[in-house]
Amino acid sequence: MKEYLFKLTEKVRDYECDLQGVVNNANYQHYMEHTRHEFLESLGENFGDMHDNGLDAFVSRVEISYKTSLRSGDHYISCLNMYKKGVKLAFEQDIYRKSDGALAAKGTVESVLVENGKLTRGEYFDEIIKRMNIK
Amino acid sequence: MKEYLFKLTEKVRDYECDLQGVVNNANYQHYMEHTRHEFLESLGENFGDMHDNGLDAFVSRVEISYKTSLRSGDHYISCLNMYKKGVKLAFEQDIYRKSDGALAAKGTVESVLVENGKLTRGEYFDEIIKRMNIK
Amino acid sequence: MKEYLFKLTEKVRDYECDLQGVVNNANYQHYMEHTRHEFLESLGENFGDMHDNGLDAFVSRVEISYKTSLRSGDHYISCLNMYKKGVKLAFEQDIYRKSDGALAAKGTVESVLVENGKLTRGEYFDEIIKRMNIK
Amino acid sequence: MKEYLFKLTEKVRDYECDLQGVVNNANYQHYMEHTRHEFLESLGENFGDMHDNGLDAFVSRVEISYKTSLRSGDHYISCLNMYKKGVKLAFEQDIYRKSDGALAAKGTVESVLVENGKLTRGEYFDEIIKRMNIK
Repeated sequence: MKEYLFKLTEKVRDYECDLQGVVNNANYQHYMEHTRHEFLESLGENFGDMHDNGLDAFVSRVEISYKTSLRSGDHYISCLNMYKKGVKLAFEQDIYRKSDGALAAKGTVESVLVENGKLTRGEYFDEIIKRMNIK
Repeated sequence: MKEYLFKLTEKVRDYECDLQGVVNNANYQHYMEHTRHEFLESLGENFGDMHDNGLDAFVSRVEISYKTSLRSGDHYISCLNMYKKGVKLAFEQDIYRKSDGALAAKGTVESVLVENGKLTRGEYFDEIIKRMNIK
Repeated sequence: MKEYLFKLTEKVRDYECDLQGVVNNANYQHYMEHTRHEFLESLGENFGDMHDNGLDAFVSRVEISYKTSLRSGDHYISCLNMYKKGVKLAFEQDIYRKSDGALAAKGTVESVLVENGKLTRGEYFDEIIKRMNIK
Repeated sequence: MKEYLFKLTEKVRDYECDLQGVVNNANYQHYMEHTRHEFLESLGENFGDMHDNGLDAFVSRVEISYKTSLRSGDHYISCLNMYKKGVKLAFEQDIYRKSDGALAAKGTVESVLVENGKLTRGEYFDEIIKRMNIK
């Protein structure tokens, strides 16, 4: 497994599986969102508080390749790297099946930051990145 | 089918089915919520606007009996009746499979109204009920 | 907190919150389902495997009282007790906010066991209960 | 609006909105899945039946650009075009807000067909395309 900035281990919940008996595609996007928000919490931020303070990160683009289907009973490790891409924040997000390390899904997620309804130049992200480097 | 105040016909979405090949139990609660909110819209209200205006209906109790499982391809008719129960608003919510009229789920949902964080005596519900009677 | 047979600590995922900024009601049913299935796993069973072997537990009735809304950032402890009720298996399921022990939701869930399409007398549940007593 | 092979008009359900008050990103993937499956039904196929017959379409890649957030009360028109891309079936999927025709999300979804666990060369898709041309 490559190096990642942040990792989260979770277990498939059966209601996340669809009639094909595997985790429904849209749920990987949920896994990735939860991982980004937990990463944020690891830096002392909370997504709900940010929203209450007029600061909203919105996903502008998602790209996911599906490799191996996760199933009932599987644990997975959801990993991320992050970098600035102009005013956007880009996340590399890979999800592995824990039992054998198989790559389940591989994604790129780009988000922009909106403050009180206005698109920002991502200054807030710059601070997050600074904070990470200090840690 | 008995008489109802409001009916909504929808189709099962395949991602709502779980690994048992039937609509996951929690989704019937989603169906019932959507039906209540569409009923509200039929009376000229919108749940999101209400929230923005400091008015939130919160579900305090739900009771659902599951009778016949809905499956991929099924249409269903989601029906409701409504009455005041003290300060609460109570909804009788029945969901039928459209093809043969089989009862899929039968529920009772009670909700309270909170205005700017304070529990109300449900005056807002009284107005809704008045409006219905006039119609 | 009362005594429970099984407890699971999890964290609210932000996508589980709705436009009111709190965990959507239907998601508590998801939390309860996941807790039952994890309890099953603690006894050496897997829900997906059971289904593949022709054995399906179906929820026949759910009753949930909502007490305190869970929010972004909250951890919760999802607890269960279980007993036989005729051919049914009944679960008492309480969910507490971890930070202060406030009761978030209190539920009763009844399920029946269907084997290759036929309703059973719950013999399978008897075995589960026996196994628990031995542990 | 450009020309599309298939269109579906639906309404945002409030539980699909998250704490930011807009439809959660993952739900657009649900909207797109439901649109593909309804398209399939318009051609006389059902996704659940296909699965029961040992035929599963799996999404291999998704790319979505988010343009305008859908909100409580919004109707949307979910549109698709489809073409063969090697053994894959590629869907262009655009979702518009109905009120003003604003593009809400723009996606590309690629899927492969697996028959009794084996990757096919997509012969089944060829038949679907033939059927469409006749119609």
